[in-house]
Amino acid sequence: MKILLIGATGTLGTAVHKTLAARGHDVVTVGRTGGDLRYDITDPAQIAELYERAGRLDAVVGTAGDVPWKPVTELTPDDYLAGFRGKVLSQTELVRQGIPYVAERGSFTLITGVLAREPVPTGAAAALANGALEAFVRAAAIEIAPRRVNAVSPTVFTEALADYGDFFPGMPPVDLATVAQAYVRSVEGAQTGQVYEL
Amino acid sequence: MKILLIGATGTLGTAVHKTLAARGHDVVTVGRTGGDLRYDITDPAQIAELYERAGRLDAVVGTAGDVPWKPVTELTPDDYLAGFRGKVLSQTELVRQGIPYVAERGSFTLITGVLAREPVPTGAAAALANGALEAFVRAAAIEIAPRRVNAVSPTVFTEALADYGDFFPGMPPVDLATVAQAYVRSVEGAQTGQVYEL
Repeated sequence: MKILLIGATGTLGTAVHKTLAARGHDVVTVGRTGGDLRYDITDPAQIAELYERAGRLDAVVGTAGDVPWKPVTELTPDDYLAGFRGKVLSQTELVRQGIPYVAERGSFTLITGVLAREPVPTGAAAALANGALEAFVRAAAIEIAPRRVNAVSPTVFTEALADYGDFFPGMPPVDLATVAQAYVRSVEGAQTGQVYEL
Repeated sequence: MKILLIGATGTLGTAVHKTLAARGHDVVTVGRTGGDLRYDITDPAQIAELYERAGRLDAVVGTAGDVPWKPVTELTPDDYLAGFRGKVLSQTELVRQGIPYVAERGSFTLITGVLAREPVPTGAAAALANGALEAFVRAAAIEIAPRRVNAVSPTVFTEALADYGDFFPGMPPVDLATVAQAYVRSVEGAQTGQVYEL
């Protein structure tokens, strides 16, 4: 399959790239600062250019999103909007604009995260973005069929425990290799409207 | 209890008002076009004025939110932003700005909706807003304790079937009186971080 992978240089993007390439797929990587194609998907106009350039696709895979981390008492509307643009609208636009380019039974796989269901302090903007996206996936799935859309919703990565473990005390981490398998499941499988919780 | 009720003139707001008043509470109603106080909570500056005017409170109750209804293929970032401002940010700001005014064990009760878990066509922006709010409630609850925050997440109202029933074929409706009881449960009970699904 020809797969467009967003977030080429990130920790998750790198792992997903490796796993999909090892399964024989043609992976076109996209990033702001690295990858085969350089685009910022928080800008809808750049998403349009990206799809025009990439051409026909079998799958689109999101692995990146930026949200602010602050206490609830300090999270202003502008902070929530920053998270909404940085993680939610970037991925809803990937779906909307991507529909004409993706094969009839092709798929979109978005990245959300554990905070939608298991919050931690200072994670409210991330929780909100993840909750929004998971509801979007369920809603979009019933409209875009036979094209498919799923979300991968991982907890903290085992490989990131040194940096982020303190935010997730006692929560079981997940290996990047396991998260990458959820992308395989979404891309090569036939399910839609699913949130793969890891 | 002194309760600030947002959405004074709406179908739900009217029912919740009646139920809370019948239980002996002092309900101060707020609306854009009706109610004891006239404010538009989609404007953060008006929320600040509203709280200044209302003074000390035991509970804040949201019953209103506006989101656009369109097919996923037509929902642009501006549409999602309109729904985000009209239902999500209005209520996250009610919580953030309300904390200094609400009693130590007082509560915020927000309105979400069934589309977060049971989507219908053209409801993606509403689904996304509801999913965002439900994740926010879980996240904010652990930070604002002992103050509390819950969501009421109803399906279509029995009383609104004539107008909206066609959007929810075969889905069991819920009576407004039952929905109003969920507000009582949130306001008079001791739970927090809950989404009451009706």
